[in-house]
Amino acid sequence: MGEYFPGVGKIRYEGPLSPNPLAFREYHADEIVAGKPMKEHLRFAMSWWHTICSRGKDMFGDEAAVRPWDQEADPMKRALMAADGAFEFMEKLGLEFFCFHDRDIAPEGETLAETNARLDEVAAHIREHMKRTGIRLLWGTANLFSHPRYVHGAATSCNADVFAFAAAQVKKAMELTRNLGGEGYVFWGGREGYETLLNTNMELEMDNLARFLKMAVDYGRKIGFSGQFLIEPKPKEPTKHQYDYDVASVLAFLRKYGLEKDFKINIEANHATLAGHTFHHELHLARVNGMLGSIDANQGDLFLGWDTDNFPTDPFTTTLAMVEVLKNGGIAPGGLNFDAHVRRPSFQDDDLFLAYIAGMDAFAKGLRVAADLLESGEIEEFVEKRYGSFASGIGKRILDGTAGFEELEAYALAKGRIENSSGRQELLESILNRYVLNSGAR
Amino acid sequence: MGEYFPGVGKIRYEGPLSPNPLAFREYHADEIVAGKPMKEHLRFAMSWWHTICSRGKDMFGDEAAVRPWDQEADPMKRALMAADGAFEFMEKLGLEFFCFHDRDIAPEGETLAETNARLDEVAAHIREHMKRTGIRLLWGTANLFSHPRYVHGAATSCNADVFAFAAAQVKKAMELTRNLGGEGYVFWGGREGYETLLNTNMELEMDNLARFLKMAVDYGRKIGFSGQFLIEPKPKEPTKHQYDYDVASVLAFLRKYGLEKDFKINIEANHATLAGHTFHHELHLARVNGMLGSIDANQGDLFLGWDTDNFPTDPFTTTLAMVEVLKNGGIAPGGLNFDAHVRRPSFQDDDLFLAYIAGMDAFAKGLRVAADLLESGEIEEFVEKRYGSFASGIGKRILDGTAGFEELEAYALAKGRIENSSGRQELLESILNRYVLNSGAR
Amino acid sequence: MGEYFPGVGKIRYEGPLSPNPLAFREYHADEIVAGKPMKEHLRFAMSWWHTICSRGKDMFGDEAAVRPWDQEADPMKRALMAADGAFEFMEKLGLEFFCFHDRDIAPEGETLAETNARLDEVAAHIREHMKRTGIRLLWGTANLFSHPRYVHGAATSCNADVFAFAAAQVKKAMELTRNLGGEGYVFWGGREGYETLLNTNMELEMDNLARFLKMAVDYGRKIGFSGQFLIEPKPKEPTKHQYDYDVASVLAFLRKYGLEKDFKINIEANHATLAGHTFHHELHLARVNGMLGSIDANQGDLFLGWDTDNFPTDPFTTTLAMVEVLKNGGIAPGGLNFDAHVRRPSFQDDDLFLAYIAGMDAFAKGLRVAADLLESGEIEEFVEKRYGSFASGIGKRILDGTAGFEELEAYALAKGRIENSSGRQELLESILNRYVLNSGAR
Amino acid sequence: MGEYFPGVGKIRYEGPLSPNPLAFREYHADEIVAGKPMKEHLRFAMSWWHTICSRGKDMFGDEAAVRPWDQEADPMKRALMAADGAFEFMEKLGLEFFCFHDRDIAPEGETLAETNARLDEVAAHIREHMKRTGIRLLWGTANLFSHPRYVHGAATSCNADVFAFAAAQVKKAMELTRNLGGEGYVFWGGREGYETLLNTNMELEMDNLARFLKMAVDYGRKIGFSGQFLIEPKPKEPTKHQYDYDVASVLAFLRKYGLEKDFKINIEANHATLAGHTFHHELHLARVNGMLGSIDANQGDLFLGWDTDNFPTDPFTTTLAMVEVLKNGGIAPGGLNFDAHVRRPSFQDDDLFLAYIAGMDAFAKGLRVAADLLESGEIEEFVEKRYGSFASGIGKRILDGTAGFEELEAYALAKGRIENSSGRQELLESILNRYVLNSGAR
Repeated sequence: MGEYFPGVGKIRYEGPLSPNPLAFREYHADEIVAGKPMKEHLRFAMSWWHTICSRGKDMFGDEAAVRPWDQEADPMKRALMAADGAFEFMEKLGLEFFCFHDRDIAPEGETLAETNARLDEVAAHIREHMKRTGIRLLWGTANLFSHPRYVHGAATSCNADVFAFAAAQVKKAMELTRNLGGEGYVFWGGREGYETLLNTNMELEMDNLARFLKMAVDYGRKIGFSGQFLIEPKPKEPTKHQYDYDVASVLAFLRKYGLEKDFKINIEANHATLAGHTFHHELHLARVNGMLGSIDANQGDLFLGWDTDNFPTDPFTTTLAMVEVLKNGGIAPGGLNFDAHVRRPSFQDDDLFLAYIAGMDAFAKGLRVAADLLESGEIEEFVEKRYGSFASGIGKRILDGTAGFEELEAYALAKGRIENSSGRQELLESILNRYVLNSGAR
Repeated sequence: MGEYFPGVGKIRYEGPLSPNPLAFREYHADEIVAGKPMKEHLRFAMSWWHTICSRGKDMFGDEAAVRPWDQEADPMKRALMAADGAFEFMEKLGLEFFCFHDRDIAPEGETLAETNARLDEVAAHIREHMKRTGIRLLWGTANLFSHPRYVHGAATSCNADVFAFAAAQVKKAMELTRNLGGEGYVFWGGREGYETLLNTNMELEMDNLARFLKMAVDYGRKIGFSGQFLIEPKPKEPTKHQYDYDVASVLAFLRKYGLEKDFKINIEANHATLAGHTFHHELHLARVNGMLGSIDANQGDLFLGWDTDNFPTDPFTTTLAMVEVLKNGGIAPGGLNFDAHVRRPSFQDDDLFLAYIAGMDAFAKGLRVAADLLESGEIEEFVEKRYGSFASGIGKRILDGTAGFEELEAYALAKGRIENSSGRQELLESILNRYVLNSGAR
Repeated sequence: MGEYFPGVGKIRYEGPLSPNPLAFREYHADEIVAGKPMKEHLRFAMSWWHTICSRGKDMFGDEAAVRPWDQEADPMKRALMAADGAFEFMEKLGLEFFCFHDRDIAPEGETLAETNARLDEVAAHIREHMKRTGIRLLWGTANLFSHPRYVHGAATSCNADVFAFAAAQVKKAMELTRNLGGEGYVFWGGREGYETLLNTNMELEMDNLARFLKMAVDYGRKIGFSGQFLIEPKPKEPTKHQYDYDVASVLAFLRKYGLEKDFKINIEANHATLAGHTFHHELHLARVNGMLGSIDANQGDLFLGWDTDNFPTDPFTTTLAMVEVLKNGGIAPGGLNFDAHVRRPSFQDDDLFLAYIAGMDAFAKGLRVAADLLESGEIEEFVEKRYGSFASGIGKRILDGTAGFEELEAYALAKGRIENSSGRQELLESILNRYVLNSGAR
Repeated sequence: MGEYFPGVGKIRYEGPLSPNPLAFREYHADEIVAGKPMKEHLRFAMSWWHTICSRGKDMFGDEAAVRPWDQEADPMKRALMAADGAFEFMEKLGLEFFCFHDRDIAPEGETLAETNARLDEVAAHIREHMKRTGIRLLWGTANLFSHPRYVHGAATSCNADVFAFAAAQVKKAMELTRNLGGEGYVFWGGREGYETLLNTNMELEMDNLARFLKMAVDYGRKIGFSGQFLIEPKPKEPTKHQYDYDVASVLAFLRKYGLEKDFKINIEANHATLAGHTFHHELHLARVNGMLGSIDANQGDLFLGWDTDNFPTDPFTTTLAMVEVLKNGGIAPGGLNFDAHVRRPSFQDDDLFLAYIAGMDAFAKGLRVAADLLESGEIEEFVEKRYGSFASGIGKRILDGTAGFEELEAYALAKGRIENSSGRQELLESILNRYVLNSGAR
């Protein structure tokens, strides 16, 4: 086993541009922020598909990158070499977690049995790397969207055979995840939706999705998988409409089928924005409903209508995300999975490092600012005061349930003119700027 | 009481342009379609605010229309004259229902008591018209968004006094609605959301919204209001984010607070599209969840990002809407409320008639096509066949709950290559075209 | 040479669904509409890439379709068989034109010389088919976006070698187009734009694009290519921003560099909507600027933010498009190229036929309605009357240039209140509905 | 004349929240950055309409703010008092410029003659304040969109009388602007577009717009107005489509009518984003075309589809804007006009100060970062190197025009495999972060 990124020492590589572009500035894994090491807050994970498998293909262009193991023609050998490269990459960056789909790590075989055997072989190799390095599996999942058999969906396919195949695939992926000590198992229903309502029985499809998830939970618990089950919302793409559209849709779905105790939500920034919501909104809505489970850390381009999966570099977005994480008491057993890929024109190997560092620094910055903001309480106190009228008097009676419409009408008739106070949005944005621009690297 | 639209005879007015532009072509109230008169399927309603109150103001322009009763300076006299005009308008068009906000029909007074007295006075006048004409109230509602007191929301205001005032206002509006025999009461939370999360306690606000709705239901049932309670989703505008974002958000909310038996949903076409969904999707999702209550019939412009409230003229949209209505077993006790206003440049009085006729014809056309489509079953049968694999074998066992992951894996391992069939979207669109273009006026 | 679509007779195939789904209803090539056969108005073309090359890959899924010639392993043999299939397809549908990129018809070789030789071989084969069938080349183009060498653009690449290679490729594609009697040559700059302004010299890139186009025109005219040069706007995808964003951007560009006499515009419906414009708007704007050259006939999904390239089925869109075509005095020497692909779930061979028929029928319907509309003049006359004030008096003096600000101020000071008339949008939409719903198949 | 904002001392007010919220942190007018005082770079202007006239009305809500001079009932007295308040506001904030529409400063009278007399009266009062304080007029304009007479447009109205009235109004506004020493005159065509193409003669309308602008330039030069003429693009709202859609549309228009020497462009951030472009893009495109004239400094909400006109607080946006301004050699004789209004819930008087400070600080920050970036040249040098292949060899021959398609083909045939380098987007975003987060307040 050779070295795949020979020019890169662990975060000390001297790049071709500017002084030391591969050094971290904001992220220092062991530095204590808000009471614990940064790495315990951030729990960064490598996404196997984007980092190891992706080659910069887009709808109008062929693969633009070549990775060191691509010269190997045999698919199983290549898969094993790619795993070596993955761990070298994680070690050099200090990443402590990874995430994968079953099909990322091993190529599909002629039959399901062969495919499963291949998975076992690569998984055994990965397990060796995990033991050696201490790197852990944040979560596993099954790819139920790439193969043509899933053209009409997996759990929501119109074809019962496909439902069965998908079940078999998830069963295996859950076993793998358990065997590798994964802390979560994710369901992203890339094809669980519709292209046109004209040919769709939405009611049956959503019922079937619930049946599938129920079977998954039952089986997972039966085999002793003790991690989180996570649903990852996305509104559309590749389908026109995906049933797990956004956090609210997932909540509606889980509550309908009595599954809300079994699942938490894995929120991706770019999926949030495709659904018309800020990342902050989706994290917040999940958190106040007790459902924030894990995060796919990336960023979209609000001028583009597809899933660009950019590396997250905006410190405002990461700050507000980390505010939610801190208020959530942390993100564990979830983490921050970089579900992001280098831009197609960033096709060189060192771009992978540069991009991860950009993302890790942005979240480290967000953590610092969030910690400062919450410690000072400057914004929190404003909000608390703003709702102060519910702490006593008529407000308290509303919360207590001791006032109904008749009492409230009597109160309103007696009360004269109502006084409101400014919501102070511009001031609060200024305050946030002050924190983001002054809670810098140490 | 004079005549306000003297040039317009009941749907027989000869307009200045083209032969008989005010004649209905598709809509004939008493013609039998799908087993009953068109008017019983369609239950068209006049929106008081857009039809009687609106004058074409926009964010960059002053009122562009002058209505016949605007010459009256005294606000209460003007309100009574406007009511006369409203009924003349409905009679001439053959509209059998109307909808209103409390503040549409009577101007706010100095105090809540005075405001309520004014409401009673105009309501008595309206009741006379209702008796005389047989025109009915489809639903009533309270305007909890225009007055500055609601600048931070009503039920979700940070100010408990505002919550109380809103409760008093809804109490009165529900009483009015009951007194006028209204078949529904609508909650549209125009300000129930946030401008910025930086100053918002979303958890408390959503809890308060649930408290408010619970109080409303309790009071409504106490006073003998037996109509439907309806929530009308809208994603945004005037707020940045409204809690009742779309059907899914409303379902999640109602299920969380145990309110799903008490409410149905009033779906507006333009609100659907602002949320990123087709009107068809929202109607369908509500219907298969047993929550389709009523419809706000309008149409947005998908190139514009605000609530344009155009009159609905697209026959494809109305066809798919009427498919959902027919499958729902009808829309009663809800109806089709034209929550639409004439474009600002359509400022003449006869534009009101032309616009309603355009909308009524478009929905009548949609009804005809939908009836033909469902009668022939051409598309329905395709869909049924498409999901045929769930009627027996492994599919049936999935639906029965007699197969879990282990059985399904065994099945998949044994099963060879999976065969799928085309989803036939292009063919189905062609078939739909055939129906829309050939189920014309008689 | 075998038959590739054995089940399909020329527009007489009896499909598996509904009575005769492959029969045309609206399109009859030789029927006279607006003074000439429908086929002369519509000049339908097959897009080689979407029809012959595409297999339903998307960003999340592998190829879902298998075409009859895919069993052939040798790439050149497969290319020749695909050409056979293409002509069988066109003959069976009665398509009289096709369009292609260089790389659609022949696979790239090891060297440019080899690639060009392959092109010549397949082109010779295609020429035989053209002679045999009378089918013609509407336009040719070069694929300057798929190969990784174009990762930073072609004419706008930061790498001069790439500019040179692109020039060589276009030179060859123009020669091919001339040799096959192509009536146009299209430039779609899929990578001519930027991913991020941070690394972009936009000024140089746009200057280079102009240089490239100038060289192309010079060379084309030198070799006797007498067809149209066309630019096809698209706002984005695959790039974040494409320089030929929309019709207005192309006009600004051509006028800056003095190229406005050398080019016309090829307008694609889905590109129009991605740029925030209706298809109608883009066609109209090009037409009134004398720049409407050809049309890419497809349709987007306004709820999705990427180029879905659906087959065009909406009769309103096709009606308004054909109004522009008729007012333009026809679209020749351009045509209607179906730059559309079957949805991924429509992966069967007969879906190709069904989809083309859906599109051809939709445009045939649009032609019928447009012809009726213009013949009746009902809307045209309204518009003419609406601007009547410019036919005499102060309006005429404005157009003549005999009044300036001083005269106009004097006029305005003397003039009393200004009277406007309604714009009648709702009525006009009703009238349009009347035509679309009543100008049906004969 | 009293004091209108008695609690606010010049940038020293102690607010109710946090230490000194009204103090500037980033903006210090006289501090030298990039070779001159910040105020000379930034040339901040107060927008009269949003600051003095706006009261927080929205499409669903009444006015939420009351300003100190609103107690005065007489409209002309109120206008004079408002002018006093405006200058007190500007003095307290240290703003050196303002911008206005004719109708902002004086209410319309019964006749045009009366309206003009009122304008003269308030203008005389404003001129006194200007003399006293040294505050200057950045630009003036005419409101050709609010009055119902402009319901179908002004220069593009279908009614010639409206064109004449608009001409008279602009004539007067230009005289006023000249008399007050204004450095620019802006044309924003809020109604110069269409609601529906069905009733529109776009060709005549655009010709008329060109006629109008030509008359304006002729008259302006005749009366000795020596400032800039500026066109402000906006894509839509209040119309469905505005002719001055974006920078590219304006360039196409001006070049068509030979007006490109007479106008520069006034770019508004929120209008850029409504058109689907970043603010940076629009500034850059205008600059490299020599057309960057002035800036409307605000920010939109990319999740909302209307013109929110937020105060600009995002330091990344302001940084990239100031990079363009510095590369432009400054923005004078244009400036940074805060075309922004406080959020409706920020209805208190001190919110006006807080919001301006937020905006001024954000741009001051942007200036600092931009100056540091350009001084270091870190990004500029990367870009220069990236295009290095055009400095010699085949690249130079392309620029020189000494190579055509034939030479380039020969070069490409001889050249082997082409090597590209990474575009380094992620690294560049990291570098930008480093500058924004470390070029802080001093």
